[in-house]
Amino acid sequence: MFVILPHNYIKMTTQQLTQQIQQKKSFLCIGLDVDLNKIPKHLLDLEDPIFEFNRAIIDATHDLTVSYKPNTAFYEAYGIKGWMSLQKTIEYINSTYPDIFTIADAKRGDIGNTSSMYAKAFFEDLNFDSVTVAPYMGKDSVEPFLDFENKHTIMLALTSNEGAFDFQTLNVSDPSGSGGKELYKQVLETSKTWKNSENLMYVVGATKAEYFTEIRKIVPNSFLLVPGVGAQGGSLSEVCKYGMNQNIGLLINSSRAIIYASNGTDFAEKARIEVLKMQQEMAAILNTVQ
Amino acid sequence: MFVILPHNYIKMTTQQLTQQIQQKKSFLCIGLDVDLNKIPKHLLDLEDPIFEFNRAIIDATHDLTVSYKPNTAFYEAYGIKGWMSLQKTIEYINSTYPDIFTIADAKRGDIGNTSSMYAKAFFEDLNFDSVTVAPYMGKDSVEPFLDFENKHTIMLALTSNEGAFDFQTLNVSDPSGSGGKELYKQVLETSKTWKNSENLMYVVGATKAEYFTEIRKIVPNSFLLVPGVGAQGGSLSEVCKYGMNQNIGLLINSSRAIIYASNGTDFAEKARIEVLKMQQEMAAILNTVQ
Repeated sequence: MFVILPHNYIKMTTQQLTQQIQQKKSFLCIGLDVDLNKIPKHLLDLEDPIFEFNRAIIDATHDLTVSYKPNTAFYEAYGIKGWMSLQKTIEYINSTYPDIFTIADAKRGDIGNTSSMYAKAFFEDLNFDSVTVAPYMGKDSVEPFLDFENKHTIMLALTSNEGAFDFQTLNVSDPSGSGGKELYKQVLETSKTWKNSENLMYVVGATKAEYFTEIRKIVPNSFLLVPGVGAQGGSLSEVCKYGMNQNIGLLINSSRAIIYASNGTDFAEKARIEVLKMQQEMAAILNTVQ
Repeated sequence: MFVILPHNYIKMTTQQLTQQIQQKKSFLCIGLDVDLNKIPKHLLDLEDPIFEFNRAIIDATHDLTVSYKPNTAFYEAYGIKGWMSLQKTIEYINSTYPDIFTIADAKRGDIGNTSSMYAKAFFEDLNFDSVTVAPYMGKDSVEPFLDFENKHTIMLALTSNEGAFDFQTLNVSDPSGSGGKELYKQVLETSKTWKNSENLMYVVGATKAEYFTEIRKIVPNSFLLVPGVGAQGGSLSEVCKYGMNQNIGLLINSSRAIIYASNGTDFAEKARIEVLKMQQEMAAILNTVQ
């Protein structure tokens, strides 16, 4: 039923991602934001509780999701041990479920030679398919990531947090001084002029689905990684109505609602139940558009 | 001659930083951006070449500088081994030269609960005095860092790279719709309204010294971390003329010009010679303003 990809497969094109979505009838991304204070107590005696937690979640949900997204902050907080858990997690996904699209949610960005080092860290050393980046430092802070063929760079455009309205939605004049548009739109437009911009995807929060109409005018073909559905109040059907394109073009992230569905020994089972609910909603939506 | 701080001293107030500057007659920050392709070949046979390189540089320069700033990208690029080098480096500085102000140049920023994890990573696990953050996600992405008493959060305002002009200098209307100012100025102004904003410092590139006049109108008392002097064309005396305040208020960063002054066995000696030149320039400037 699923396409079995070769074991050493580590690069995924957007076409292959769309194909995975259509096969699994799911465009779900599961955020692996693992906090030792929140995972079931029985795991804490194991040598690597974070990895064991992730492995159980992944084994229980991999057929219903197309993507996993560890947020690097949750690993860095535990220092070297955390970094080892991250490495084991990505290696486990790449070797066991190579058809999964992996995202390092790292929100990096620095001057050129430094961004090259970050790109090397996530694309080469850890072998993620994609990494999230921040746009504030502009072109030369993002292009080093775009240099990597068949890797994907997911840039913050409009985030789902309260602070999104501090700067992202401010009205800016374009460089010629004319017009006026919200900063996140300028970020989207400017990024399209960068070298290898076809390797860009964007983070767009689900808090106001109507934003997607405007965003799709600027980036009709790009994949959008969408946090904020569910817990933060965004509606899946609204996001799909305004944000979906002919290649689906959406990855809907959910983290805490899935991975902390239970803090007992049944945590993975309960996670699967939550994932199944979302996948069924997604399948229903996909059936209406195809 | 120098104040000997207790061995377990790990927090530095801005007053103590100014005191260190006045004692050492230096407001230099040395960037430890260590690339295995650029360090002397004889170090590569050692178990931890990056740490050995850092230790030699630090031992040779600690009396002429007030701060070291490892850029996390250069450590992450080497995975777990790199993270271990970073940890050994910060532990070495904290235990051997506790009067040094340490900066994790990480440019982090995420939604609230995630930024808390980053703050924990750099302030608690690694025990840095400060960390650099990106402003794009706004208030709730930065405030978790500011929560840490006597730790410092250094936010990107105006960077020294070419891409700084993509977004940072765009003209924005303030939230009321009136006026118009460059985005980096809005970032500075808005950040002053955040909780514990007294723990903020800012990254301001040296590429155009006149910017400092405007920036000092907004943040007269804050410390500014200044990249871009020397190699990138900024002038030390110009930056000081427009950017220095009554507490000095400047940390001038230099990295490659110092740490790669030689790639032979004399690399630490040659680094010291470069540092001494800069420190003497700084001492001369400090003598004229005091």
